[in-house]
Amino acid sequence: MNAISRLLKPHSVAVIGASADATKTAGRPVSYLVKHGFQGDIYPVNPKAERIGELRCYPDIASLPAVPDVGIVLLGAERAHLAVRELAQRGCAAAIVLASGYTETGEEGARRQRQLIDAAGSMRLLGPNTIGLVNLTDNIVLSATGALEMEHFPVGAIGVVSQSGGILGALLSRAAARGIGLSKLISTSNEVDLELADFIDHLVDDEATKVIALYVETVRNPEKFRAAALRAARAGKPIVAFKIGRSEAGAQAAVSHTGALAGADRMYDALFRQTGVIRAQTFSDLLDIPAALSTGRVLRNKRVAILTSTGGAGTLVSDSLGVSGFETPAPDAETAAALRALQTGDHAALDRNPIDVTLAGLRPDLLRGAIKAVLASPSYDALVVIVGSSSLAMPELMAGAIQDCLPLSDKPVLAYVSPHAPEVGALLTRRGVPAFAAAESCTAALAGMLQASQWKAPVAEAPQAAAVPADDFPAGSLDEAQAKQLFARFGVPCAREVVVQTAAEAEQAARELGGRVVLKILSGEITHKSDVGGVAVGLTAEQIGVRLTEMAAQVEARAGVRPQRFLVQEMVAGGAELILGLHRDALGTAVLLGMGGVTAELFKDTTMRLLPPGGPLSREEALSMARELKTWPLLDGFRGRPKADVDALVDAIVAFSAMAAQLGDRLSEAEINPVFVLPQGQGVRAADGVAVLAR
Amino acid sequence: MNAISRLLKPHSVAVIGASADATKTAGRPVSYLVKHGFQGDIYPVNPKAERIGELRCYPDIASLPAVPDVGIVLLGAERAHLAVRELAQRGCAAAIVLASGYTETGEEGARRQRQLIDAAGSMRLLGPNTIGLVNLTDNIVLSATGALEMEHFPVGAIGVVSQSGGILGALLSRAAARGIGLSKLISTSNEVDLELADFIDHLVDDEATKVIALYVETVRNPEKFRAAALRAARAGKPIVAFKIGRSEAGAQAAVSHTGALAGADRMYDALFRQTGVIRAQTFSDLLDIPAALSTGRVLRNKRVAILTSTGGAGTLVSDSLGVSGFETPAPDAETAAALRALQTGDHAALDRNPIDVTLAGLRPDLLRGAIKAVLASPSYDALVVIVGSSSLAMPELMAGAIQDCLPLSDKPVLAYVSPHAPEVGALLTRRGVPAFAAAESCTAALAGMLQASQWKAPVAEAPQAAAVPADDFPAGSLDEAQAKQLFARFGVPCAREVVVQTAAEAEQAARELGGRVVLKILSGEITHKSDVGGVAVGLTAEQIGVRLTEMAAQVEARAGVRPQRFLVQEMVAGGAELILGLHRDALGTAVLLGMGGVTAELFKDTTMRLLPPGGPLSREEALSMARELKTWPLLDGFRGRPKADVDALVDAIVAFSAMAAQLGDRLSEAEINPVFVLPQGQGVRAADGVAVLAR
Repeated sequence: MNAISRLLKPHSVAVIGASADATKTAGRPVSYLVKHGFQGDIYPVNPKAERIGELRCYPDIASLPAVPDVGIVLLGAERAHLAVRELAQRGCAAAIVLASGYTETGEEGARRQRQLIDAAGSMRLLGPNTIGLVNLTDNIVLSATGALEMEHFPVGAIGVVSQSGGILGALLSRAAARGIGLSKLISTSNEVDLELADFIDHLVDDEATKVIALYVETVRNPEKFRAAALRAARAGKPIVAFKIGRSEAGAQAAVSHTGALAGADRMYDALFRQTGVIRAQTFSDLLDIPAALSTGRVLRNKRVAILTSTGGAGTLVSDSLGVSGFETPAPDAETAAALRALQTGDHAALDRNPIDVTLAGLRPDLLRGAIKAVLASPSYDALVVIVGSSSLAMPELMAGAIQDCLPLSDKPVLAYVSPHAPEVGALLTRRGVPAFAAAESCTAALAGMLQASQWKAPVAEAPQAAAVPADDFPAGSLDEAQAKQLFARFGVPCAREVVVQTAAEAEQAARELGGRVVLKILSGEITHKSDVGGVAVGLTAEQIGVRLTEMAAQVEARAGVRPQRFLVQEMVAGGAELILGLHRDALGTAVLLGMGGVTAELFKDTTMRLLPPGGPLSREEALSMARELKTWPLLDGFRGRPKADVDALVDAIVAFSAMAAQLGDRLSEAEINPVFVLPQGQGVRAADGVAVLAR
Repeated sequence: MNAISRLLKPHSVAVIGASADATKTAGRPVSYLVKHGFQGDIYPVNPKAERIGELRCYPDIASLPAVPDVGIVLLGAERAHLAVRELAQRGCAAAIVLASGYTETGEEGARRQRQLIDAAGSMRLLGPNTIGLVNLTDNIVLSATGALEMEHFPVGAIGVVSQSGGILGALLSRAAARGIGLSKLISTSNEVDLELADFIDHLVDDEATKVIALYVETVRNPEKFRAAALRAARAGKPIVAFKIGRSEAGAQAAVSHTGALAGADRMYDALFRQTGVIRAQTFSDLLDIPAALSTGRVLRNKRVAILTSTGGAGTLVSDSLGVSGFETPAPDAETAAALRALQTGDHAALDRNPIDVTLAGLRPDLLRGAIKAVLASPSYDALVVIVGSSSLAMPELMAGAIQDCLPLSDKPVLAYVSPHAPEVGALLTRRGVPAFAAAESCTAALAGMLQASQWKAPVAEAPQAAAVPADDFPAGSLDEAQAKQLFARFGVPCAREVVVQTAAEAEQAARELGGRVVLKILSGEITHKSDVGGVAVGLTAEQIGVRLTEMAAQVEARAGVRPQRFLVQEMVAGGAELILGLHRDALGTAVLLGMGGVTAELFKDTTMRLLPPGGPLSREEALSMARELKTWPLLDGFRGRPKADVDALVDAIVAFSAMAAQLGDRLSEAEINPVFVLPQGQGVRAADGVAVLAR
């Protein structure tokens, strides 16, 4: 057994600083271990007590009769490292440090945290500032959470890892009240050693766990997280994550536009999407979606039948499903006939959905028949049963009727409980029919199931192409021409252009390019060329000389610098304008694709992907980015427009990402804005760009 | 007392078809009346029983010893009208008909419903298909809802009107479990007589009611609803409405574009917005927002303090608030000093928000001090107290400490309960501190409070201007030139244009208009001119003659009709492109304003307002429409663009709405698309339009 396995399933536990007073936090771990039936050895350590309850108490770690698998350290931050050092020296597998007062409180705390890490040496450490862990599968509770005051918890298949201790207690008590069974709960908190990814990895191998729920404040080690999450996805164990920090302000960018459009939370969206992690939109979803997934049932499509004995609630669920893109079609003829055969009386409405089975609510045999008909119907992918007041009189019979039908199909069967009846919901959930008190929860659960069933493992990453020579570019901010030369080097098609210094050179360049051209100043100092009158479009070779002289004067007047160099560029028109940028933060390096133009900019119509380790984005991934834009129809022939050259766009995204992958940290910033996507067969053209190379 | 008052507070109740078996639906009303302490006379009517419980049972309505205020009719749809007729004949104030099987089941049901209305005559009728009503203020329950099996309900200031009977039970039981006090609940269901607006009116006058909650399926009488809702708003009784049907497909339009952008649910948005009704986004909000409003406390701005003794949950609330645009600033220096003076130990973080008051959770005096400091602080408009596990040990003390502070300020004080502890939440709610188990609920409650405090009664409607003569326009689809003449007649500035038939006329028109012009075919038959090559832009007077001949040939080839007439129009450029349209459905007539251009169209960036009775929109309302567009910045000088002539746009909206108001049903469809809004001082120009006049 490795150290993490020993931590989660120890044969012996020492509790350092255990109090004999079970009402105190320091008294809880021993009291809870005993109360919840730990079968191994418990060694309370406290020099001031002889016994704690039935247990012998030891004066210090040195006196312990054997080496414990785990030490729970209840001492304050000032002394916790002393106990940790002794536990490590005795060969303990892991220590759990509950004290707060580390990095979260400032500099003195950070010093203590370094001391703690040093003391642990090679012993694994959970915390500090953790509330511990709970192994429900094996009745082992190594935690001080007040939620353990409860007597019983439903044991199930959901493993929980939380970066907040308080949240662990909230999830434990909320799940228990709803009949949602958990397998393990671990609070990682400050993560000086053991972190999210370690426990994801462990839970992937844990037979008792089928679904993993994460409460995430920050992913400290994105590559490890990525590997663990992909491993879970490939093992068929879906991960559901709730991530706080959604309202944080977007990151600020120095030169490019990308930073303002990116933002920390969008990077998490990209990370989760690319690793098959289902993002819970609300804290409630963090139990709702795993509860549905842990049934192991499969949602193949979006057509949901609603069986109801109370009109209002069925409509409520159908409305919520509709808002989220689910369909609630009326029964097909065969299903309607099967339903009609069950019923007596003419008031039941069987030709619509919600399917009104007023009588069935009171007669389990009818309910059973109706459920069977729906589960057998080719028109439906899932079933939601509405529990109204009439069902409350006989919850066991009703739950039994639904449960009987479950083996007939692997379609999801959920319940919505309309009146306040938490005990009925818990009963149904325990019987394998996840029950919800909010229509939105029901919808979120189904949406999560659909996402899980539709996830595809990323194709093997594109092999890194031969390195492109790029050492000749200078460090610092490249000028526009250099930036585009860099992009072109990696295979991004750029607008044709010539650097000129004089009116005569400009005329000649315009003649060579042919047609009308654009004239821009070329300057490392002036970023916003248009603001100082440094851009002119639609010029002929005849006009350009005069215009250049005028522009030089105007820019000098406005910016105080006389431009020495100019760019003469072919006019690109008739395409869609996009932005392609690079964004980097603690989570990694990402490519951002967005629709350009002032209107799309107001709607921040963008999408992001993190670069996979060591390689560019795949063509599939690049295409999925383009398709994700809300303005994708503009590229796809909306309203009789010509279809855009999406193939060329995909190539450009891959090329841009390959540049980012190869240059790594050397490329501080990069952005093409705009890149024109021309009609099919005509390619793309980078028309303007920014690149900053690290010094 | 009027009939509705007698219905809600009767002195005597007859129950027709009462069963002696209290477990049957027909046994419930009598049983519940007795159980919940009705002080008046109860007359069960059933020819087969002598007594029901302690009560004497009557064989028929004719035998009743006195005229009851209210008759509850429990007979089926086949016989209910007979009882209703007898009750009406005896002079009963109102009858409640529970039976289903009316219009909701089809034609036979519709016939029964007409029979029922006829039987009632001038007696007021609640239902049919209703579950009845509950007057909690006076302990009078006239209902069969199973939710009344509960023993006690918190009595409070929220009056509920639901168009669904099942939902009434759900709200009653859910509110009770959460300690949310209600005053009256009425299920109106089929609304053959008494409807939403009647009960809104009644609740406005009801002293016990401070907030009104509506569960809406459809508003059958929009003008009555509008009047009642405005009356409630002016009386300072906020209305919160949850409306289902959000996912219904948008209405289909014949000629114009507006219909596809409008849709039934957007009309409800407009109705609610214009009458001060707060729209609940989830069913849970329908209790959450009223619970907060019924405290009578006032939210003046968006700055929220969070006091927490558990890190995770505070962050959860702060994150949810941030996503919805609330602010959680750190304490100002004075408040921080006041907080610091309360605390001992160095682990509490008082310089940030959530404000961590770890110790205060265990010491009510500290909690009291912290709450006082926050309520006194000029930096905060509201307070959310986080209830963690540590507070659960002493809920009464904690609730008492918070309650003590309430009189010191009228700022909202809410609670978020992190672990599963419904009894603690209910205790707090009963003590005047609305408690929530979801961060989103807390946020929705605060958002509702803000909306209530910021609502302004509409200014007195603009007086209808003198009627514009418009009888000379023909019935049917007007051609583009006629449509714009109609709009211009009402004061909408249109692009200058001339109708021509020949190349020579076109040349002359182009010369008169000056500059470059647009040439379009003018045809009542061809709606999509561009699709058949019927539009050319940027033409000079020299070019236009040839182009006209070409266009005539091209359109004939493509559309099979040779165009006889053409429009020569000045080129309008340099402005923002908008759409201004008319939409009409059962709720009334609305004006739709939207941003034009293909990108904005993909985002459906539109807003709507219903015409007030008999008049145009006010300038204020028209301006608020423009400001509501997500692309409003495009009109407001975004990124150094010139500001658009918003004054002229407002004038155009008012003029368009005055046209709609004056023409009424005669104007079947109207749409200006696009209308160009030019830079400030340059006005607006309708460039193309559609109008259909009723035959």
